[in-house]
Amino acid sequence: MLRMSSLFVRTLREDPADAEVASHRLLVRAGYIRRAAPGIYTWLPLGLRVLRKIERIVREEMEAAGSQEVHFPALLPREPYEASGRWSDYGPTLFKLKDRKESDYLLAPTHEELFTLLVKDMYSSYKDLPLSLYQIQTKYRDEARPRAGVIRSREFVMKDAYSFDVDEAGLDASYAAMRSAYQRIFARLGLPFVICSAVSGAMGGSRSEEFLFPCEIGEDAFVRSAGGYAANTEAVTTVPPVEVDSSSFGQPIEIVTPGASTIATLVDAVNEAAPKPDGLWTAADTLKNVVVAAVHPDGKREVIVIGLPGDRDVDMKRVEAALAPAEVEMATPEDLEAYPELVPGYIGPQAVGPQSARPAEAEPPAPRYLLDPHVARGSRWVTGANKPDVHVVGLVYGRDFEADGSIEAAEVRAGDEAPDGSGPLEIAKGIEVGHIFQLGRKYAKALGLSVLDENGKSRTVTMGSYGIGITRVLAALAEENHDGRGLMWPASVAPAHVHIVAAGKDDSLYAAAEEIAAGLEADGVEVLLDDRRKVSAGVKFADYELLGVPFGVVVGRGLAEGRVEIRDRAGETIEAPIEQVRERVGELVRSALSAQS
Amino acid sequence: MLRMSSLFVRTLREDPADAEVASHRLLVRAGYIRRAAPGIYTWLPLGLRVLRKIERIVREEMEAAGSQEVHFPALLPREPYEASGRWSDYGPTLFKLKDRKESDYLLAPTHEELFTLLVKDMYSSYKDLPLSLYQIQTKYRDEARPRAGVIRSREFVMKDAYSFDVDEAGLDASYAAMRSAYQRIFARLGLPFVICSAVSGAMGGSRSEEFLFPCEIGEDAFVRSAGGYAANTEAVTTVPPVEVDSSSFGQPIEIVTPGASTIATLVDAVNEAAPKPDGLWTAADTLKNVVVAAVHPDGKREVIVIGLPGDRDVDMKRVEAALAPAEVEMATPEDLEAYPELVPGYIGPQAVGPQSARPAEAEPPAPRYLLDPHVARGSRWVTGANKPDVHVVGLVYGRDFEADGSIEAAEVRAGDEAPDGSGPLEIAKGIEVGHIFQLGRKYAKALGLSVLDENGKSRTVTMGSYGIGITRVLAALAEENHDGRGLMWPASVAPAHVHIVAAGKDDSLYAAAEEIAAGLEADGVEVLLDDRRKVSAGVKFADYELLGVPFGVVVGRGLAEGRVEIRDRAGETIEAPIEQVRERVGELVRSALSAQS
Repeated sequence: MLRMSSLFVRTLREDPADAEVASHRLLVRAGYIRRAAPGIYTWLPLGLRVLRKIERIVREEMEAAGSQEVHFPALLPREPYEASGRWSDYGPTLFKLKDRKESDYLLAPTHEELFTLLVKDMYSSYKDLPLSLYQIQTKYRDEARPRAGVIRSREFVMKDAYSFDVDEAGLDASYAAMRSAYQRIFARLGLPFVICSAVSGAMGGSRSEEFLFPCEIGEDAFVRSAGGYAANTEAVTTVPPVEVDSSSFGQPIEIVTPGASTIATLVDAVNEAAPKPDGLWTAADTLKNVVVAAVHPDGKREVIVIGLPGDRDVDMKRVEAALAPAEVEMATPEDLEAYPELVPGYIGPQAVGPQSARPAEAEPPAPRYLLDPHVARGSRWVTGANKPDVHVVGLVYGRDFEADGSIEAAEVRAGDEAPDGSGPLEIAKGIEVGHIFQLGRKYAKALGLSVLDENGKSRTVTMGSYGIGITRVLAALAEENHDGRGLMWPASVAPAHVHIVAAGKDDSLYAAAEEIAAGLEADGVEVLLDDRRKVSAGVKFADYELLGVPFGVVVGRGLAEGRVEIRDRAGETIEAPIEQVRERVGELVRSALSAQS
Repeated sequence: MLRMSSLFVRTLREDPADAEVASHRLLVRAGYIRRAAPGIYTWLPLGLRVLRKIERIVREEMEAAGSQEVHFPALLPREPYEASGRWSDYGPTLFKLKDRKESDYLLAPTHEELFTLLVKDMYSSYKDLPLSLYQIQTKYRDEARPRAGVIRSREFVMKDAYSFDVDEAGLDASYAAMRSAYQRIFARLGLPFVICSAVSGAMGGSRSEEFLFPCEIGEDAFVRSAGGYAANTEAVTTVPPVEVDSSSFGQPIEIVTPGASTIATLVDAVNEAAPKPDGLWTAADTLKNVVVAAVHPDGKREVIVIGLPGDRDVDMKRVEAALAPAEVEMATPEDLEAYPELVPGYIGPQAVGPQSARPAEAEPPAPRYLLDPHVARGSRWVTGANKPDVHVVGLVYGRDFEADGSIEAAEVRAGDEAPDGSGPLEIAKGIEVGHIFQLGRKYAKALGLSVLDENGKSRTVTMGSYGIGITRVLAALAEENHDGRGLMWPASVAPAHVHIVAAGKDDSLYAAAEEIAAGLEADGVEVLLDDRRKVSAGVKFADYELLGVPFGVVVGRGLAEGRVEIRDRAGETIEAPIEQVRERVGELVRSALSAQS
């Protein structure tokens, strides 16, 4: 039993100065966490209890899914991360240090390399697979902007799991098993979630989904449709528009457009000089050509021109995802020096890609021209003429120019169609609480993990990687479950099930509260008893609401008539005869727990 | 249920090359741990199960003792350790690093500072005390010589607890409570232990005891008597010899002793030149004067001369403990340059301390002269005459010379009397598995932790610090419980209670083994089932013995007659009718567990 008289907690009435989001404010005010350094937190008794309960649920579901728990060091030598490339790829986010012998070490941000090496060390045959391993362990990332308490911290607890299979079918099965386990975990935790298609980014690999907790303070934008589609904006594919019949379209004409430096002024100028036969040209009829530079892993820098409708912004995160593993930035004036045919502000498709006048053997060759899929074959466009102050009107894709390929470059907008036809998309924000990846053979190849197959042939193992941010989940639960007065934990993770308040000065109140507490504890109900004698009832009620234990029992004035209050932190208060309290509260707790089991 | 067919384990028949002690060899060979880097280990599923069981026992006893669990970060900012002085005091043992903003951080070797600051942050009144907090957490020390697997590793799990009291009586009570909890913990773990008086060394403070697991491979020497006394050699106090009546002793005489460069040649020369009236001079009659340099915390270097009987070596660890917090080393020729009166090889007490001819105002002043308590007042000595090739014979302590004080400098020897009169001492080795300290006010003063007492007066809090090396305890248990064939875990921490071996090829063996396993698991017995079909019975038996689960059940040839074997890993094998197995094995397990609860 927890007792407020001795529990190591001090509730605060004031919000901490550095806390911007509700979960952070309340976890500090309620005495669950304390800041030790920027982005680094200490877990106080109540916070640790919630953390352990989350871990237990995760552990149970991982074991049920056949994953076996191990535990890796956080302090690791440089070599494996050098082999995978992440020693440098991680950049300043990686905490690095030297030991007394001047050897390089790091604090692991995640453990793909070590798991790969461990399995390589232990296993050698296809008969040993499939294998699934996990750990619940402290990780380190030197975030540029730690924020929102333990939502983005620099030392945090993560569950990371890894699957090892001989072939794709095995990886698919391992991935599916982990995906189901994650659904059960978040359901048991009582945390709403959306499974978003994601691109795997720097991790490499083929399939990847994020478990996002939708909430306004989230940093991750995603889209979803009423029909159940959900994806990261990086992963959204555009519904291709139908091909346009261009047989009746006239030939393109060039017009002089001095001062048309924005899409809006261009549209006005074009409607004046070369009106559209069947209406008005709009921004959606302009073809914007954006020059980017992709830096490939081998260090090669490639200039690429991307065409997209002028009414949409380029989403560089989508571009980068499409060109991964290259890193992408806007082209610099230095990049453009090699291509005098690209006139800034007036770039058109005729100067790039297949129709470029640059000879095939030129060095550098013509930039690749990639088109956003919003540009339909046969459609006609207002675009640059590759001459200062000149645009071309009525240029038809497929007749007057071609592209080297397609790229998802335009921003996704609310109202866009979901790619699976499940309706228009809405844009939402969320916090990533889980992530499942099909890593494929990237790490196994880099570190030499292979097994002999049934024919004695060496096969590189294919892997999956599956993470849950344990400390972040705790903050997400606090974010989802609070009101203006405090936290409101789901029963499955609450630091206690019932918060009993002896409200008043009379000894009989305390005696009755103790008796109720003892009875409930005997029934397996976890009790937090406010047995403080010199604290006012008002302060006790405020603490009850702040701490967020799901049910409350108030032993106060009504005791004289043999009655106490039973409160639901998220619902109503009822009065009950004292002799019924043990049974009724026990029932409430059991029912709340079983709803989540 | 654990199944050998899927358990992530590979047993090794060969000892790992880098393993010098049995526990290290066996933990690696049995697949409990794997080395990730020098002194840094990965915990495999079986090892992690044992570790978690040890943690659970520690946690239960800490909670029973009223300590509350919190969890601090491992990555900490420099400032608190700067305030306590440990940022530099820890030397190269402290892992240091910088974050992306070039701020200094460390990986915490222990958390006195942070606990002190947390309590300062939360509490302000004597009414909040006493308070006891603990954590089970990963610690980092860059050991110069990591050794013996997880016995001395660089990343390790420690339980550290801290008590906070207003006064000495409170600290004594907190210390006593923690001492009892430690006794219960090690008893439940089944680990033999000796509680040794210890000096607190760099931690500062007044009272300190170590819990040592006695074993040959231990690095910590300690002494104990049959009557129950036990102490670190640094903490042993000498039983003072009775004062000698010197009234009949003649005056000292000087003799020329060319070539008497050892105690033995000196004794021979003296017996020749100035025979002892009542027998022979021995090494025990020679007074050796050793010059050391003590470096005080303020950086001041002090030359000290220590006198002790020539038949005993100086124990520099004892000297350093006696002069703490100064660090002590042998004096260098540079140190001696300032004291031409000290003639190397012929130093005698007449040149130092109270009888020094050096004027009181001289700079430097005469070195302090400290005498080991083995030197009795009134006793007569052969010692140096402070002239080359000259010794003095029959110099009487208290008549011919005095000292500035006493110091425990001589080595402790087997057969010496225990200071509490409990008999002669024996010298033993052990591994430190726990340590309890009365820190006193050192950290509270350095970091400003005070509370208001009942009179509204500010009082600096007095603290205790209490550690258990969780990962080291695991290795100690393996060291204590093994034989030539493998590990032999106590039931309280074993990765499973029963190891069931299906020994043979027939399906019926496997079916029977599965049924026994299911029955035992239903009764709460943890089963490791060797259900591998293509592995020989010999390999399975070897694995059973290596892994060290306390009980085994072999389903083999006897099954045809309805009989199976029940094995006690540390005892005998019996045959039993299969229908009795569930009950009899359950009984064995329950009895083994309750013997340790």
